[in-house]
Amino acid sequence: MTDFGIRDPFVGIMKGVIEKIAPALHVSDLTHAIPPQNIQVGAFILSASFRYFPERTLFVAVVDPGVGSARRIIYAETPKYRFLAPDNGLLGMIFDEEEPTQVVEVSNSKYFLHPTSHTFHGRDIFAPVAAYLSRGVKPEELGPTINPGDLSPLPFTKPYQDEKGEWHGEIVYIDQFGNLITNFSQNQLGLNGKETVELRVKNRAVKGLAESYTQGNGEPIVVLDSFGTLEIALFKGSAQDFLNVKQGEKVSLRCQTCYS
Amino acid sequence: MTDFGIRDPFVGIMKGVIEKIAPALHVSDLTHAIPPQNIQVGAFILSASFRYFPERTLFVAVVDPGVGSARRIIYAETPKYRFLAPDNGLLGMIFDEEEPTQVVEVSNSKYFLHPTSHTFHGRDIFAPVAAYLSRGVKPEELGPTINPGDLSPLPFTKPYQDEKGEWHGEIVYIDQFGNLITNFSQNQLGLNGKETVELRVKNRAVKGLAESYTQGNGEPIVVLDSFGTLEIALFKGSAQDFLNVKQGEKVSLRCQTCYS
Amino acid sequence: MTDFGIRDPFVGIMKGVIEKIAPALHVSDLTHAIPPQNIQVGAFILSASFRYFPERTLFVAVVDPGVGSARRIIYAETPKYRFLAPDNGLLGMIFDEEEPTQVVEVSNSKYFLHPTSHTFHGRDIFAPVAAYLSRGVKPEELGPTINPGDLSPLPFTKPYQDEKGEWHGEIVYIDQFGNLITNFSQNQLGLNGKETVELRVKNRAVKGLAESYTQGNGEPIVVLDSFGTLEIALFKGSAQDFLNVKQGEKVSLRCQTCYS
Repeated sequence: MTDFGIRDPFVGIMKGVIEKIAPALHVSDLTHAIPPQNIQVGAFILSASFRYFPERTLFVAVVDPGVGSARRIIYAETPKYRFLAPDNGLLGMIFDEEEPTQVVEVSNSKYFLHPTSHTFHGRDIFAPVAAYLSRGVKPEELGPTINPGDLSPLPFTKPYQDEKGEWHGEIVYIDQFGNLITNFSQNQLGLNGKETVELRVKNRAVKGLAESYTQGNGEPIVVLDSFGTLEIALFKGSAQDFLNVKQGEKVSLRCQTCYS
Repeated sequence: MTDFGIRDPFVGIMKGVIEKIAPALHVSDLTHAIPPQNIQVGAFILSASFRYFPERTLFVAVVDPGVGSARRIIYAETPKYRFLAPDNGLLGMIFDEEEPTQVVEVSNSKYFLHPTSHTFHGRDIFAPVAAYLSRGVKPEELGPTINPGDLSPLPFTKPYQDEKGEWHGEIVYIDQFGNLITNFSQNQLGLNGKETVELRVKNRAVKGLAESYTQGNGEPIVVLDSFGTLEIALFKGSAQDFLNVKQGEKVSLRCQTCYS
Repeated sequence: MTDFGIRDPFVGIMKGVIEKIAPALHVSDLTHAIPPQNIQVGAFILSASFRYFPERTLFVAVVDPGVGSARRIIYAETPKYRFLAPDNGLLGMIFDEEEPTQVVEVSNSKYFLHPTSHTFHGRDIFAPVAAYLSRGVKPEELGPTINPGDLSPLPFTKPYQDEKGEWHGEIVYIDQFGNLITNFSQNQLGLNGKETVELRVKNRAVKGLAESYTQGNGEPIVVLDSFGTLEIALFKGSAQDFLNVKQGEKVSLRCQTCYS
């Protein structure tokens, strides 16, 4: 997963680097269309997707506005998965669900390409390190161990409940159909899809839950989507355009039967 | 082949599901840019492409406006190929050429992901069923046999000849260069590429056949294209913009030497 | 690498053809977003990327405005890599760096698909020939040997130095962020990234070298980029929009410490 897009040859070059070091390694694309440098979207997409991949999959996640600065690159393991990413919060939503069992700083330049550019660490660090890991290099050889508590926090807030019982969250992702995906998740709220809820965004109330995308009669609806999150949708239209909302917009939730 | 696009992580997640069940299965992308819910374009693209793939290829085709409704998902075999698709006509152009030898309804939830969403059957049904089939699960285990005659018909008409001998068809696809691809096919009409033909679209006559895309002197031409169909093109320009035509537009054909 | 884009099924069909002939062959995408028929961009992207792939990689490069005309298709080997491309200059920047050791004209239709279209040689010639080569077909079997001196020259000029010591080159590529990539390369000029240089484009001087993309205070900067070339960039903006420049624009360079 990167924010490189697929117009320029950057992703193709990363695959070349991997093939050179680890010809038998299978590489799969999650998406390369994370909005440039948007850590929040990257964190959401990765956390919504990783469980569908085989255990022990190594996710190479490059959304890295700090490339070339002093930010660290980390390798992290959870009980079931492995990750290579900048230490900028990109793995934060995953670590909220699965605590890392091992984190190391990727600093041993033995596993980098040389010369190592300041601008394209995807090619010069992420790709070769991923390839060497697949060939059996031990995480400990990549650099010093990091205490998970010392990792950079998520650069955005998690949903929280105020004293009146109302939840406050955000639109964390807008898909290509204009559906507005919130960070109110089934797991956190104990949703079963049959609740009565009310989302408020830009002073407009949207009620739900609808059972399918085809409801609403031209008005926005709330559905529990395939990511397991509450989502505002508009049948045969774009909820984004209808409500004139951008990613990052604040959303509040009223739900009497949700967890608190 | 899907209409999911590659901006969102949906295709990437489907591949993760497949890798989890069938790690050695080779997955190849035909296109994920079918216009959303456009069964006609999906049917055309698949029928124009499938013969170039190895025999026994399993095509997973998801253009599925009825996802979550009572529409069936089918597995179908022809003498040379295998298909997994919604029963909405998406395979109709293929079945016109190759009769299915076996069709079953995909209903055995043993091979689905659980919980099975109402909104993302690509992830929860198509991907895992494809993976299990590759591992040797028999089609009969997926659900009851369907009589091919009971399948949903194509939701659009095939070319037909009127009493005056004129053919009537449609623009079924417009490629990224603005070329207008009709459903008048070489096979159906017995074309050899040297005919004198006249296509009429929006009351404008376009004559052919041109031998290459470079002809026409700034006017639209008719070529027999690499899909084996009659196509209206404009050298160094977009026939779509020039003629102001949309996919689905009616086209008529006069051709004295064509089959009738 | 092609200019086919990924909206239409052309790239997917090429992969099907390859899988049919050489099921075990690993195919990797560099990019399919070369601007249509833009040989200069294709030549630059390929030359900037090929060294990152494993030795003996066969690059299939289709940017081919002359498809269907008398232009030749060539197979070429350098000491480390192999290429299949139209003879139109697309490999020119590579041959400037690595002299070809063998070049043959691809003319033996035994290895083509039949019927062979005039419009889609990617499917009918490039894909099957690449697949047969991977299965051990000898280059000599593809057609007659060509003297490298008889190949089509680059259809654009290389940087040159005038009598005053000023270099003259071009913007050869503009990436998706609007960075302007010149054909002034580290290798040709002996750059170490610490030079004082001045680029002039459209009568505007841009000075460098900056150490990172984050410099410039809202003004364009010159960086030595990850392609190893001089590039004009604008922090948090598009140098392309700022300077209103198109690919192909002339650029001159003053650099006292560069090679001459």
